[in-house]
Amino acid sequence: LKIDGKTRLCAVLGNPVEHSLSPALHNAAFEAEGLNLCYAAFRVEDLAGALAGARALNLLGLSVTIPHKVAVMQYLDEVDETASRIGSVNTVIHRDGKLYGTNSDGMGALRARRESGAGLEGARVLVLGSGGAARAVAFTLGKEAALKEMVLLGVLEHECAALCESLSRAAAFPVRWEPMNPETLKRNAAASDGVIHCTPVGMHPNTGESLLARGDLRPEQFVFDIVYTPRRTRLLQEAEAAGCRTVQGVEMFLYQAVFQFELWTGRKAPVEVMRRVVMACLA
Amino acid sequence: LKIDGKTRLCAVLGNPVEHSLSPALHNAAFEAEGLNLCYAAFRVEDLAGALAGARALNLLGLSVTIPHKVAVMQYLDEVDETASRIGSVNTVIHRDGKLYGTNSDGMGALRARRESGAGLEGARVLVLGSGGAARAVAFTLGKEAALKEMVLLGVLEHECAALCESLSRAAAFPVRWEPMNPETLKRNAAASDGVIHCTPVGMHPNTGESLLARGDLRPEQFVFDIVYTPRRTRLLQEAEAAGCRTVQGVEMFLYQAVFQFELWTGRKAPVEVMRRVVMACLA
Repeated sequence: LKIDGKTRLCAVLGNPVEHSLSPALHNAAFEAEGLNLCYAAFRVEDLAGALAGARALNLLGLSVTIPHKVAVMQYLDEVDETASRIGSVNTVIHRDGKLYGTNSDGMGALRARRESGAGLEGARVLVLGSGGAARAVAFTLGKEAALKEMVLLGVLEHECAALCESLSRAAAFPVRWEPMNPETLKRNAAASDGVIHCTPVGMHPNTGESLLARGDLRPEQFVFDIVYTPRRTRLLQEAEAAGCRTVQGVEMFLYQAVFQFELWTGRKAPVEVMRRVVMACLA
Repeated sequence: LKIDGKTRLCAVLGNPVEHSLSPALHNAAFEAEGLNLCYAAFRVEDLAGALAGARALNLLGLSVTIPHKVAVMQYLDEVDETASRIGSVNTVIHRDGKLYGTNSDGMGALRARRESGAGLEGARVLVLGSGGAARAVAFTLGKEAALKEMVLLGVLEHECAALCESLSRAAAFPVRWEPMNPETLKRNAAASDGVIHCTPVGMHPNTGESLLARGDLRPEQFVFDIVYTPRRTRLLQEAEAAGCRTVQGVEMFLYQAVFQFELWTGRKAPVEVMRRVVMACLA
């Protein structure tokens, strides 16, 4: 990585950001493509100042992470429809003096699936969770994928009902929700073509936990897990044992970064370079 | 250069900055010392926003260049005595949430001289020019070096008189000025122990110009030239021909950067690494 007087900067804003993989990932991609760009991580408390800085220092793009994904929206010139509905922005593009916000988290899931050679068209999809990740996946699929049906299961019933209601207005397919419990999990998993897990269950250090067991799953189903520490969560192990096709959270993380790269640079991302870096960082 | 989630950023703010040598110079120094720092260049129009950004993004240090060296002062928490007197800041240190301003341009000249094994103590010094560079050199010597006398020659008489007056109050040695013309140049050069040239005369593309010729100089004298494009200006060629000791502008540029590095990091700078980079960039 070489920085000179013409190098433009991209950055992730979050708090904390010390353990972010994004600098390694994006810098490897910039370097592989011979782009005069570099990517840094900023631990930010004063978000207004950070966004004023992004404008004044002419940063090319931002990744935005916890706890700033919602608050960042007020400092942008435009937020696209999907990010507005999700209610959070994880990607900012600086173009012609304006800051545009979008959300690549759901696209990460969708592209990870498509790159594995399959879409979600016509599928009955069960989404577990109703937080930020679930919203990102649900609204992105609502806009981008012609599902047959989506079912939401959540522990926070108000949150889940609200997500279901606003998603129903935005999506072309039917959406319904139920409170999450052992019975609803089992029944809705059985009735689905696949499951997208969007809760922290099973994340390090609670790696023994899973919302579903192999007995709840069939070989024709697919299972995505947004959790990527560990890479093979208990849920994915159960799904593999049941013969399901799986998509690891690390693939979703990778593809949301791929999507960011492509938005910032207008070029196809060097996916294999980026995958190698992510895998090396997580190994 | 490797950037991860813990890397802190330094930067130069200016307009233009596309051809700045500072990123190559400081990044090489950071890398040589194994510091988790990197240095970028930002072309800045909105200086208030840039300084808000420097705070919010927790930049470690800034270099400030044309046209922002004066205006930047209003955005800092503290400006040291020398920089206040010079009336401009080219170096900002971010420490404990505060931005401190100083000016390393004059220290560059003084250290370049000292590193060559000689000081300026007891010398009668002729300073040519009364602009920003002359102010930086004059006030820094006024504070840091026990000269015998300083004479200022300038074309802009009000500017030169004002510099002389304020410098007289700050320095422990006598200071006087005269309007710059062929006669005052010749006479004051003859009466001095050495000359510090702080005007743009002789800078690329006007490389044939010089305020002094070899006949004006004696072998016991020293001649500094702040101009560093070309490295060997016409003035320095004349001085060498007269047998004088010379200090190139590139050495002053180098040592002001060395001084910045040491202020930001609290360590001794890898001067030889930095010199190699500057020489390679200018070659």
